[in-house]
Amino acid sequence: MARDVQSERPANSFRLEKVGVRGVMKPVQVSRTGHTVTLPTTFDVFVDVPASQRGSHLSRHLEVIGEIVDASVRSNVPSLEDLAGTIATTLLKRHETATQSEVWARADYFLERTSPWGRKSLEPYRLVAKATADRGRSMQTHRAVGVEVVGMTACPCAMETIRDGLGSTAAPRGVPDGLPLITHNQRNRTTVMLDVPEGHEVEADDLIEIVESSLSSPTYELLKRPEEGKLVEAAHRKPRFVEDVVREVLARILKRYSDLPDPALVSVKSESDESIHKHNAYAERTTTLGELRR
Amino acid sequence: MARDVQSERPANSFRLEKVGVRGVMKPVQVSRTGHTVTLPTTFDVFVDVPASQRGSHLSRHLEVIGEIVDASVRSNVPSLEDLAGTIATTLLKRHETATQSEVWARADYFLERTSPWGRKSLEPYRLVAKATADRGRSMQTHRAVGVEVVGMTACPCAMETIRDGLGSTAAPRGVPDGLPLITHNQRNRTTVMLDVPEGHEVEADDLIEIVESSLSSPTYELLKRPEEGKLVEAAHRKPRFVEDVVREVLARILKRYSDLPDPALVSVKSESDESIHKHNAYAERTTTLGELRR
Amino acid sequence: MARDVQSERPANSFRLEKVGVRGVMKPVQVSRTGHTVTLPTTFDVFVDVPASQRGSHLSRHLEVIGEIVDASVRSNVPSLEDLAGTIATTLLKRHETATQSEVWARADYFLERTSPWGRKSLEPYRLVAKATADRGRSMQTHRAVGVEVVGMTACPCAMETIRDGLGSTAAPRGVPDGLPLITHNQRNRTTVMLDVPEGHEVEADDLIEIVESSLSSPTYELLKRPEEGKLVEAAHRKPRFVEDVVREVLARILKRYSDLPDPALVSVKSESDESIHKHNAYAERTTTLGELRR
Amino acid sequence: MARDVQSERPANSFRLEKVGVRGVMKPVQVSRTGHTVTLPTTFDVFVDVPASQRGSHLSRHLEVIGEIVDASVRSNVPSLEDLAGTIATTLLKRHETATQSEVWARADYFLERTSPWGRKSLEPYRLVAKATADRGRSMQTHRAVGVEVVGMTACPCAMETIRDGLGSTAAPRGVPDGLPLITHNQRNRTTVMLDVPEGHEVEADDLIEIVESSLSSPTYELLKRPEEGKLVEAAHRKPRFVEDVVREVLARILKRYSDLPDPALVSVKSESDESIHKHNAYAERTTTLGELRR
Repeated sequence: MARDVQSERPANSFRLEKVGVRGVMKPVQVSRTGHTVTLPTTFDVFVDVPASQRGSHLSRHLEVIGEIVDASVRSNVPSLEDLAGTIATTLLKRHETATQSEVWARADYFLERTSPWGRKSLEPYRLVAKATADRGRSMQTHRAVGVEVVGMTACPCAMETIRDGLGSTAAPRGVPDGLPLITHNQRNRTTVMLDVPEGHEVEADDLIEIVESSLSSPTYELLKRPEEGKLVEAAHRKPRFVEDVVREVLARILKRYSDLPDPALVSVKSESDESIHKHNAYAERTTTLGELRR
Repeated sequence: MARDVQSERPANSFRLEKVGVRGVMKPVQVSRTGHTVTLPTTFDVFVDVPASQRGSHLSRHLEVIGEIVDASVRSNVPSLEDLAGTIATTLLKRHETATQSEVWARADYFLERTSPWGRKSLEPYRLVAKATADRGRSMQTHRAVGVEVVGMTACPCAMETIRDGLGSTAAPRGVPDGLPLITHNQRNRTTVMLDVPEGHEVEADDLIEIVESSLSSPTYELLKRPEEGKLVEAAHRKPRFVEDVVREVLARILKRYSDLPDPALVSVKSESDESIHKHNAYAERTTTLGELRR
Repeated sequence: MARDVQSERPANSFRLEKVGVRGVMKPVQVSRTGHTVTLPTTFDVFVDVPASQRGSHLSRHLEVIGEIVDASVRSNVPSLEDLAGTIATTLLKRHETATQSEVWARADYFLERTSPWGRKSLEPYRLVAKATADRGRSMQTHRAVGVEVVGMTACPCAMETIRDGLGSTAAPRGVPDGLPLITHNQRNRTTVMLDVPEGHEVEADDLIEIVESSLSSPTYELLKRPEEGKLVEAAHRKPRFVEDVVREVLARILKRYSDLPDPALVSVKSESDESIHKHNAYAERTTTLGELRR
Repeated sequence: MARDVQSERPANSFRLEKVGVRGVMKPVQVSRTGHTVTLPTTFDVFVDVPASQRGSHLSRHLEVIGEIVDASVRSNVPSLEDLAGTIATTLLKRHETATQSEVWARADYFLERTSPWGRKSLEPYRLVAKATADRGRSMQTHRAVGVEVVGMTACPCAMETIRDGLGSTAAPRGVPDGLPLITHNQRNRTTVMLDVPEGHEVEADDLIEIVESSLSSPTYELLKRPEEGKLVEAAHRKPRFVEDVVREVLARILKRYSDLPDPALVSVKSESDESIHKHNAYAERTTTLGELRR
């Protein structure tokens, strides 16, 4: 019998709070809102290791992921964050010396969207689920779900500068009322993570809807010429800083999830690939719903 | 003495045309246009291996890179493509069984630019140099230099759609003459590679200038409000498809490098991170100057 | 009616050989070897644009991708390269002025593998399909299929150095016969692309099998302790340079696809993330089967 | 005069704790340990924005970065974290409504290393500096410096399994004493961030030395055959889990920086690109020196 090297005392007895595997890829089956989708998911999975133990038995991480993902094919799993929660709990059962576990699951995700002009398309997004479990608090798990959405922002500031003729050689005085003015616009990536407390559900599709409503405009795969013109005009009629996007997402989340308790965490990040610079503009707020409600 | 495993006959005697190392990082000193810059450069370096030889002695690749880069600190090296050319030739001397070599060098590069409004800034670009050497043709080397430039494109098509009111709810009739119309604009990356035949020089700074002149607008690190307005207006007065950008770069190269011989290769690629889509628009032309001159 | 800007004459009348879109994401349904899999696929799709035409109508690219992918859900599509081929042909029908088209499709892919010790797991790979169509040759399409495989290489050279005691303080003389010696080993990524001429089929799963057989060892998601020992030993009993890997893949392809015609192209690239260096080792051969058969 | 859009009241009055720019590239001059190096640095720079203000004046971020970096060329700046600290303080002066600022600076960095066999080479690393400033505590800044180091780990567990013959077909009984046994080894990336409290200095070069001493072996650009053998043997004589690496780095930091106060934060992360798996092994500890000293 070989030495159980991992269970030996380490040379330097410090506790480690995150030991595990990153980049484990698995196809996961999730039954969302009535239909089943297969998500090619990437897992990062960790437990803590006490000061008295040299190493974590990492093959158990893989066994747990494998078993829970396999089971998801047979029984309906309602969401990626539920799956992550089950993995988090099972990790603590399998690693007797661990007191906490942390699971991240990320997947490409397609959602059917209908443009304002009636055209349907499957648009790509990114799903993120996180779950932690805590042995001290009777295996209590903590789940969060998130989305990453690509859309468009048009800058309100450049538009006002243009309106005032500050930047103009041909003075734009006498602009007909209601004519949208030029500005820089660009691709934007906005991400939201929201806690899903026990007994509550948060639908990722709703978070995607909330983000897209908060941008200058959602974007679409296929735009015929008049639709392209309408989207450009709509975006210019709703100019947004990254700051505006983050705040509007927060306001919509407060309204939509009025039932979620005060301690629930929310994190919103918005980044615009500025068309007029080589760098990006960025805004972020990470806080509790309670703090926002004050 | 250990077996020289690399020099043994391989199990499957096929010639390999590229064997070497990728991702070797070295600080390189180059004396460009009168001043010396240090470029943290990433090298990919290859030779061919004949069917009769199991492996390349890869440590020689590193010795050659090291020696040539070290020498560049003592003697003035005029360009990254000259350095790559010397590495390519030296590789053939050191690998007796090789008949051809290929060297790529890539580096971040800063160039002082002056905006149309007189503000100076150091803008970041990417330099690319390539060199090959061929034993069969008495060690003849072949050098090319390239740049990657980030700038801005504004779409001509959406602008015409807007002009025609096709996409508009508030009809933009009665637009004052000369008022630029809204459109989508976005970050664009355009790359150029151009052969530098023996006895000729191509200055990377000129290629950067050519690309920036061919975009809707160059971009700048710092824009105070009126400058931002002026840049946005300038870009809207010069709308460009990726197709336009590639063709304008080609035309400017033909004009600027009328002395370069017909067989010299040129490659231009332009990619716009479309603000109205989640995917990118792309155009490319790779050909000889002679073909373009016909 | 708005001006059809794309159809205007360009300012600089050069032909462009690749104009299109990159990074279009679509879930694709493929019926491989009896079962149906959904592949979240990323498309890059191009046509040429004649010198007389300013721009390509890019929305047609998206219409074509959308229609063909939608049709794949209803009718069984046998492979990603068949789907790419249909897109390539349809692009030429829709873009009347184009003479050639090029389609790339890339997707994460999971394949059930059984380790030498009987454990089954779904391992992740990357599928690549390419197709081109040529109006001049009565719309003839050209298809290729490829795989990217992650596995393990153990270095033959360091092992011989160790055997000879060159690098050793404790001389390894008197090593029992058959005991595998230490060496450096590491993660390796090997990619293969192979033409699939009209009337032939190439199964991506077979290419994965060929690559994994050519490495020092395939790798597995879950290895319990004795299995880990056996895999390490197996890899050390089959040390491989990147050069060895490329040549063994080529030899296996020649044997397996003896029916493929001489002009069929094959490209094999192998890159090892050297554990003893910060850079990678790399080998490549791109040629025709005919050339290899000589 | 155009409206100062950023200073208007926002539609949704939430405070934002991080608003700024990401990916600003600048060449920075730092005088480290007697010699001056130019670091091509990427900056991410943020301030908070109060609930009453719609947007941050982002051009001020760029002005501040530009001024401080320009000044660094004239006056000697001892470290990237000092530069970051000055930027953090100046941001608060320039953004009157902000109460806190955060600055990240990242750069490729080369350090001359001497292998155990006397060969010198410039090895590439990654420097990270962070600084925050807090208006509430009289502009107090908080600095941290970090490094990212690539090296090698050899697995202790597989080695013991091999020793015990568990995984072997040819039983390795009768292994001569002191002969190192085979195991899997691989590329590893370990990062350290350490607070640099006011009045203290932490030399990034020392952190690199600490990490390299804690791995199974540092890696080198150029290894001639006997040196390669010796490095492989050395790594096998010092097998290390990622857990071991993190703990040894922590122990060495405690010893080397016994003068740093208890509240100083340290974060150590180690990730091995497992050669026997397609996923990575990972360990992390983020805590205060005081916590480690208990």
